[in-house]
Amino acid sequence: MYTIEPIAFVKNNRTEAEDDYWGNVISEIIISDKLSEASIKGIEEFSHLEIIFYFHLADPSAISISATHPRGNKKLPKTGIFAQRKKARPNMLGSAIVKLIKAEKNILTVSGLDAINETPVIDIKPVMKEFLPEGNVKQPEWSKEIMKHYWSVKK
Amino acid sequence: MYTIEPIAFVKNNRTEAEDDYWGNVISEIIISDKLSEASIKGIEEFSHLEIIFYFHLADPSAISISATHPRGNKKLPKTGIFAQRKKARPNMLGSAIVKLIKAEKNILTVSGLDAINETPVIDIKPVMKEFLPEGNVKQPEWSKEIMKHYWSVKK
Repeated sequence: MYTIEPIAFVKNNRTEAEDDYWGNVISEIIISDKLSEASIKGIEEFSHLEIIFYFHLADPSAISISATHPRGNKKLPKTGIFAQRKKARPNMLGSAIVKLIKAEKNILTVSGLDAINETPVIDIKPVMKEFLPEGNVKQPEWSKEIMKHYWSVKK
Repeated sequence: MYTIEPIAFVKNNRTEAEDDYWGNVISEIIISDKLSEASIKGIEEFSHLEIIFYFHLADPSAISISATHPRGNKKLPKTGIFAQRKKARPNMLGSAIVKLIKAEKNILTVSGLDAINETPVIDIKPVMKEFLPEGNVKQPEWSKEIMKHYWSVKK
């Protein structure tokens, strides 16, 4: 067992856990007062960051380690938790690659972060091309199905 | 504070923490007996996985939250911990996008995992194109410099 603690918090206008419509969400990542601004020095030279965060509203009792239908949709094949990205998962960590819009004092403004307001951030890493997938990325049809409205803008 | 625990362990031929030469390392990720094989059901339909792991050999007393020279190289600019990917970091989590070679029983065989033998794995997520960076990835020169031999094969 290891202990982890937030190094930052998310501030945005998403107050409820909802799967879709992350398209126009702009978030601020506010670095904890326990850390200095020096912890993000030079970060503005990167266009993208990887954010590891904690699904603080996920229900630990909902974590299933047997295979389940993605999003509870019985038309989609039963799939193991580690072949899904859903919130109720062992260790309840989420991760996202976001676009850095601005770094100012202890605040990072980003787009593409699918985490709600007040989400605890556990780590921030710079994205380097050398760590992105090599070769073609293949994924099953069901994953494209559930991603259909993920980055859409809610009307 | 949150607690996390390993859901798998890494098995490979890298026994010492070393920065470079990950080029030909093939690893097995062995899912813990506490979880069933059902936890990875369907994972073989993805070509790439994201692995979150714990830098179990990193020295917590070496974690610096002020800016440091990447890899201790004074020719490179002082940079904050969250603009670097080094091991001695708050919460000591690493992450990698790996290529899935084979999924058999409770074992995932992968390439591109820069974690040494016996590394505790905290999470496994499928890589979907919809979560990869949009637009050009920009990064500073120093990051290209330190990545020069990262994926090389040691002679």
